[in-house]
Amino acid sequence: MHSKSIAVVGATGAVGAVTMRLLRERGHENVRAFASSRSAGRELDGGILVEEATPEALEAAGVDLALFSVGTSASRELVPHAVRGGAVAVDKSSAYRLEPGVPLVVPEVNGARVHEHDGIVANPNCCTIPLTCVLGPLHEAAGLTRVRVSTYQAVSGKGAQRLEQLLAEAPADHDLSMDWSWEGDETDEESKIRAETRKILELPELPISATTVRVPVPVGHAESVWIELEEPLSPEQAAAILAAAPSVQLVDVPTPRAAAQTDDVLVGRIRPDYAAGGNALTLFLACDNLNKGAALNAIQIAELLLGDRVAARC
Amino acid sequence: MHSKSIAVVGATGAVGAVTMRLLRERGHENVRAFASSRSAGRELDGGILVEEATPEALEAAGVDLALFSVGTSASRELVPHAVRGGAVAVDKSSAYRLEPGVPLVVPEVNGARVHEHDGIVANPNCCTIPLTCVLGPLHEAAGLTRVRVSTYQAVSGKGAQRLEQLLAEAPADHDLSMDWSWEGDETDEESKIRAETRKILELPELPISATTVRVPVPVGHAESVWIELEEPLSPEQAAAILAAAPSVQLVDVPTPRAAAQTDDVLVGRIRPDYAAGGNALTLFLACDNLNKGAALNAIQIAELLLGDRVAARC
Repeated sequence: MHSKSIAVVGATGAVGAVTMRLLRERGHENVRAFASSRSAGRELDGGILVEEATPEALEAAGVDLALFSVGTSASRELVPHAVRGGAVAVDKSSAYRLEPGVPLVVPEVNGARVHEHDGIVANPNCCTIPLTCVLGPLHEAAGLTRVRVSTYQAVSGKGAQRLEQLLAEAPADHDLSMDWSWEGDETDEESKIRAETRKILELPELPISATTVRVPVPVGHAESVWIELEEPLSPEQAAAILAAAPSVQLVDVPTPRAAAQTDDVLVGRIRPDYAAGGNALTLFLACDNLNKGAALNAIQIAELLLGDRVAARC
Repeated sequence: MHSKSIAVVGATGAVGAVTMRLLRERGHENVRAFASSRSAGRELDGGILVEEATPEALEAAGVDLALFSVGTSASRELVPHAVRGGAVAVDKSSAYRLEPGVPLVVPEVNGARVHEHDGIVANPNCCTIPLTCVLGPLHEAAGLTRVRVSTYQAVSGKGAQRLEQLLAEAPADHDLSMDWSWEGDETDEESKIRAETRKILELPELPISATTVRVPVPVGHAESVWIELEEPLSPEQAAAILAAAPSVQLVDVPTPRAAAQTDDVLVGRIRPDYAAGGNALTLFLACDNLNKGAALNAIQIAELLLGDRVAARC
């Protein structure tokens, strides 16, 4: 069904495994898998043999697209080789997200930017993707003026190994954590949410304040969001706008577990922000951090680049 | 050491058990335990035999103080009988918190109000207590104008049974939830946080917006808080004020588990609210919901009523 060739780099990680599954489910047949030397030689579902992700191998691969789900430093090292080899790279790390000339794309929000690339398209942070899916349509309707967000992030966001650790842990030991890198008084996750949301929405001065927290949940990120707007927008109007927005699904109470069973961003608890003077809303969202928060968004970018469908329902 | 007699009603529940332990640790020797008929007759640590909490038994108990950790409807039924019997009731349920003439007390914040009772003193919600321990000193310094809070609440807040369920659960099944009652578009927990904070701080119009979430952590509530102020207050000034505040302990990253090992409210991540124009801070707090968030606060109220110490360090 799809003739173009795709390489998945980091195919055996938490997001890479979901990427491989989604590509198969969406009918992409010409897929090659790359990973570190530890996983090279392993056979994946569908009989795909994992190749070692060396700079030389990626440069010689001759694929049309390369989807990277590796760490930031591995992306910095490997992505340029794939591009030199003629591929367009869709990178899920934070290595290139804020570079001028690199489109940072959520297809439902700024899909038109995808073609303005110079070999690399960046996939946003797993919290930024669902946040912009919700903020984008509200901004278009009433103009964002301030955003505050507290996150509830699943441990699978930290990788497959941390997920295994959680599953083996006694619930009596479960705790919240802020297992991020730090940039002054903020976590790198908090500054990513700010900078990436500004870039995607093309609102370079948008005031955003985030507090990012890891919760002992396996899969699914949730976000508690306060939104101030230029113009009045009732909860009912916001709900109607979001109900019509692509990849957004209204529910009473979004939870990570419910989100992990869908491709959509679940949104609920839409109500006035009772702390604000007016023109302000509060809502709660949840999204599968491995799926729409990472793998699916990157595949949607890839499909836009291939001139293909974005998702069945869009 | 303490000669006055104290009844603990609901002595075998999650909070009641902590209340019994803390009373023992703090040298209260004249303590009687009451619980439902299911637990009556059981022998607790220290050889205390659980008596059945009937209206008649409480009215005839002849105790000086009765600390209630039972549900709201049981409090409504039983508290008046203890008061009729001559006791001052310290009630941990939400039954009397907002009643005019019933002091709602966090000893560190409005301890002076404790004596203005007519037989009943109410203990606030487990999220309101740590929140007001932090907001009180900041309000005194710079005047609160708006408060927004997202909670991360431990399952033990839902009772001993829900805690056992969590401990028996596979971590793969862990999820967030909003297992509260609903009042229109808010949870009862959200409206309690607003109404109780206003009453304790004596700011009846303070704009507060809360989103309350249950997280799969056994003990310890955390809160992500945005605070807008009348006057400028730098994070350094706020930290100095909070470092000097009773029952508050500054840490880099407060977590429920660390809070469960102390009597204090842990506060950290104090930084400017980058979404606000100025005079606004963001911070994160954690507190043992069974201890300072419930049992300890009620015992501190009891000790104020007994003309006793509040806590060793206050």
